[in-house]
Amino acid sequence: MPAIDTPSTSLLDIAARLPAPEPWSPPEGDLAAAVREWSRALGGEHVDTREEALARRGRSTGGRPVPPVAILSPGSAEEVQEVVRIAGRHRIPLHPISRGRNWGYGDACPPGPGQALVDLRRMNRVLEVHRELAYCVIEPGVTQRELAAALEGSGLWMDATGAGLEASVVGNSLDRGFGHTPYGDHFANTCGLEVVLPDASLLRTGYGHYADARARWAYRYGVGPVLDGLFSQSGGGIVTRIGLWLMPVPEAFSAFFICAERDEDLPEIVDALRPLRLHEVLRSAVHIANDLRAISARCRYPWERTGGATPLPAHVRAALRAEHGVGAWNVAGALYGTRAGVAAARGALRRAVGGRWRVVLLDERKLAWAERLGRVLGWLGRGEALRRRVDIGRDVLDVLRGVPTDGALPGACWRVRGPLPSERPDPLDARAGLLWMSPVAPATGEAAREVMDIVTPIYEAHGFEALVTFTMITPRALCCVTNVAFDRGEPEESARALACYDALAGALAAGGYHPYRTGPAGWGKLARGSTVFWETARKLRAALDPDGLISPGRYDPLAPRA
Amino acid sequence: MPAIDTPSTSLLDIAARLPAPEPWSPPEGDLAAAVREWSRALGGEHVDTREEALARRGRSTGGRPVPPVAILSPGSAEEVQEVVRIAGRHRIPLHPISRGRNWGYGDACPPGPGQALVDLRRMNRVLEVHRELAYCVIEPGVTQRELAAALEGSGLWMDATGAGLEASVVGNSLDRGFGHTPYGDHFANTCGLEVVLPDASLLRTGYGHYADARARWAYRYGVGPVLDGLFSQSGGGIVTRIGLWLMPVPEAFSAFFICAERDEDLPEIVDALRPLRLHEVLRSAVHIANDLRAISARCRYPWERTGGATPLPAHVRAALRAEHGVGAWNVAGALYGTRAGVAAARGALRRAVGGRWRVVLLDERKLAWAERLGRVLGWLGRGEALRRRVDIGRDVLDVLRGVPTDGALPGACWRVRGPLPSERPDPLDARAGLLWMSPVAPATGEAAREVMDIVTPIYEAHGFEALVTFTMITPRALCCVTNVAFDRGEPEESARALACYDALAGALAAGGYHPYRTGPAGWGKLARGSTVFWETARKLRAALDPDGLISPGRYDPLAPRA
Repeated sequence: MPAIDTPSTSLLDIAARLPAPEPWSPPEGDLAAAVREWSRALGGEHVDTREEALARRGRSTGGRPVPPVAILSPGSAEEVQEVVRIAGRHRIPLHPISRGRNWGYGDACPPGPGQALVDLRRMNRVLEVHRELAYCVIEPGVTQRELAAALEGSGLWMDATGAGLEASVVGNSLDRGFGHTPYGDHFANTCGLEVVLPDASLLRTGYGHYADARARWAYRYGVGPVLDGLFSQSGGGIVTRIGLWLMPVPEAFSAFFICAERDEDLPEIVDALRPLRLHEVLRSAVHIANDLRAISARCRYPWERTGGATPLPAHVRAALRAEHGVGAWNVAGALYGTRAGVAAARGALRRAVGGRWRVVLLDERKLAWAERLGRVLGWLGRGEALRRRVDIGRDVLDVLRGVPTDGALPGACWRVRGPLPSERPDPLDARAGLLWMSPVAPATGEAAREVMDIVTPIYEAHGFEALVTFTMITPRALCCVTNVAFDRGEPEESARALACYDALAGALAAGGYHPYRTGPAGWGKLARGSTVFWETARKLRAALDPDGLISPGRYDPLAPRA
Repeated sequence: MPAIDTPSTSLLDIAARLPAPEPWSPPEGDLAAAVREWSRALGGEHVDTREEALARRGRSTGGRPVPPVAILSPGSAEEVQEVVRIAGRHRIPLHPISRGRNWGYGDACPPGPGQALVDLRRMNRVLEVHRELAYCVIEPGVTQRELAAALEGSGLWMDATGAGLEASVVGNSLDRGFGHTPYGDHFANTCGLEVVLPDASLLRTGYGHYADARARWAYRYGVGPVLDGLFSQSGGGIVTRIGLWLMPVPEAFSAFFICAERDEDLPEIVDALRPLRLHEVLRSAVHIANDLRAISARCRYPWERTGGATPLPAHVRAALRAEHGVGAWNVAGALYGTRAGVAAARGALRRAVGGRWRVVLLDERKLAWAERLGRVLGWLGRGEALRRRVDIGRDVLDVLRGVPTDGALPGACWRVRGPLPSERPDPLDARAGLLWMSPVAPATGEAAREVMDIVTPIYEAHGFEALVTFTMITPRALCCVTNVAFDRGEPEESARALACYDALAGALAAGGYHPYRTGPAGWGKLARGSTVFWETARKLRAALDPDGLISPGRYDPLAPRA
């Protein structure tokens, strides 16, 4: 495994400037005794308690570090069971991470102080790839890069998120992340979880609890109650294996891009695309990015041109829009199917939106051609703009075909000042501050406009700008993915970012727009007068985890907080 | 509401000949006091304790009646809450039924003796039909007939099961039934449950627990753990409302039928159709019925021709096959989409299977034409066979378009002797015995053949014949829906049917084929050496329902049984 978390010298400087961590309460249990036993069980090299390592893992793009008390790296489900047994005996809560790249939603941080991290990166086996039935069985440490490599030549596509090559597939699925292909609802495409419970027993959902169940990876529900949902956006268990359905490579594929020049076109775009989604002409998530989101993939905040002022002045925004050739709203999606099926879908898409906006359909042949042209222009010393566009086009096209890339990572650095450690850095290494705010709206133009009307003035009032994507995650729902992007190296801006986040969360919830997912800054806000649901969730979790051994506090608004 | 359970005079005669009910243990609580309070809360006319009514509701197609101790008919969620409060005070367990037409899977019977039935038939409001976002909000008492009526002219299709016009939509969804259109996975198309919990609190899943959540009926998961699965194939709650996604009427629709003449063609059919399912050329469940299943929709067991002998002799079977014009395997499915999309799918289907078997594509125009022809032939005194075929064709075509019919009900009467109360009778009134056995297999030809190899000799050894459908419920899974059909009026045959069921369940599970759903005869068999899953399910249920107040024993193999 390539170690991508290579230490950077400026790390401690940066940490020193971060807001104070949560008030640390020592773990109730006997940490030293637990560490001794964990070391015996896993080998000393897989138990890390060095302060620097703990501080490093406790960093957060949210700005508030929460260092773990130990980092444990089990290599198998049996070792995870042993880790849990020891934790239970010594009352040290555990927080499992697959790869810890939950950027903007809590990163690798435990939900509270005093918890030991169970880092599952060593459990990175692709246990099975089944071509005929189009699924794989993987462990939580498997990264997007590794899964893509394992699928090469298999005739199967994975669905990738923008979290980059080193992000875990299982972690994202359990947090209900979404991607770009018809398999974009990652949780819905899991089939069978294997979970170590707080009492160290091994639960298998679906049919997995029967020996030799033939449909184990083919049918998700099994028989009796469906328990899988309890382990998504939750705690109370450590998932050590999942089945994941994959998409057979379609006969034909065509990406499409729609560019709308006017800010006020958003509702019309949503209302034009919804019927195509409902009628399954569009069978995958469609992403509708505003100009700023599109620009943030191409450059950072133009500090020089604004003289350091924020938020972005309107004339600079207009200039950037023109320079980068992006519209007010930029739609990206793809068509998948047989050749005749894609041709039919292309026709339906053109009929629905072609008369109104510019639609570009792009298959691989066209892109390869543009790439060659870019290379030629590069030899001639020009064509830099084209090369960049082709690069971005390639990233978008890749992700629409389930090929993971690091192409979305630079967007996290929008507000970072000064040089970056690399072109596509780990947001934590790059001082990127990132607080995702992802309210879900019904897929109507009116709702999309209302969400924009809520968030835009709040961003502005706090000196930020709205970087927004509306994703048609289902035929009926839009997820507005927007983030407060800030520079974690700037304490004032960091504080302002948190205030902006709080204001956004409050206003959106008051408007009836609730998040599809949230990080630590949001968990405490989830109850909002709704008690039965969260009390029921707590009761269920307590039935499995009476002592709060696994990720206590995670997605639990009723938990006591610092 | 039309009362379809009109008493039949022969009822008590039949009941007298049924196998003995479960040994009855009197309820622990004070039933008389509870009945008094229920009557006060609901009005006396909505609390029924007349012995005849209880016996009637306790009838089972499975052959073992389990009469409830009272039948309560609340009219609202508030009344359900009050019913639950009273039940809790007096410790009388409750069993909710939506319409009680869970034929072959337990019917309206409570899971054990001493339970009061909560009959939700009065809660039959269609609360909302949203055309733009293609969903409705319904109460559990809404029947398939009522939902279809409410959707008339809406531009939306429901997905229907074969359980007939008077079956509940909610009940089937919670039991994870499936239908025929792209919305055939009923549970997956629910969005937001409202559930009265055993402590009488009202739980709303998804975003429903937030006041005025805009995406309440558009996005299923909400935020935090997903609890919906706990209330499917389970107990521990009474669902009083759901959101249900509906299919916008497609621009084009085409049914298709494939007829294979040889028994040994099954594996090849499955292997030919699977890629079409995986590539979404086929976007809905495809049903593959054997000759006997197809024949059982057209006539009853030919007692005269076999001289009363069972199982069906091979030569009679061959003759019936020829007379009814059915193949060894009969595939029915449909294509949905834009006109160009359906044309493309039709081409792909023909390419995949056309060279091998006869494929008939049927749109509404063609059927209308055949109908007219049948009517003309009828006037001329012939064409009876054509009329019947058109009737059956109409039923199949209806269900492929989400139109509920009673067309599948006669199949339940396969083994019933003597006259039936009507052409399409309630299986309970018709003495139909029905024990579904629905093992799930991976969608490979080899697995389908293996399932047939397991079940065929067991049916034969017990004097029954395998009426089988393989349904491609997902691209990766086949559900083999087969049933032991018997005459509940024949005690010897009834006993043999139960023995056959037990043998089938044992052999299928030993072969790795587990049911997607099961009735009371199967619940006790579900553990099969698998303890962690079922103990976890029990713990979770106990967290909500410590006193076992709602459907105790249902889908709970570890519950003590008589």
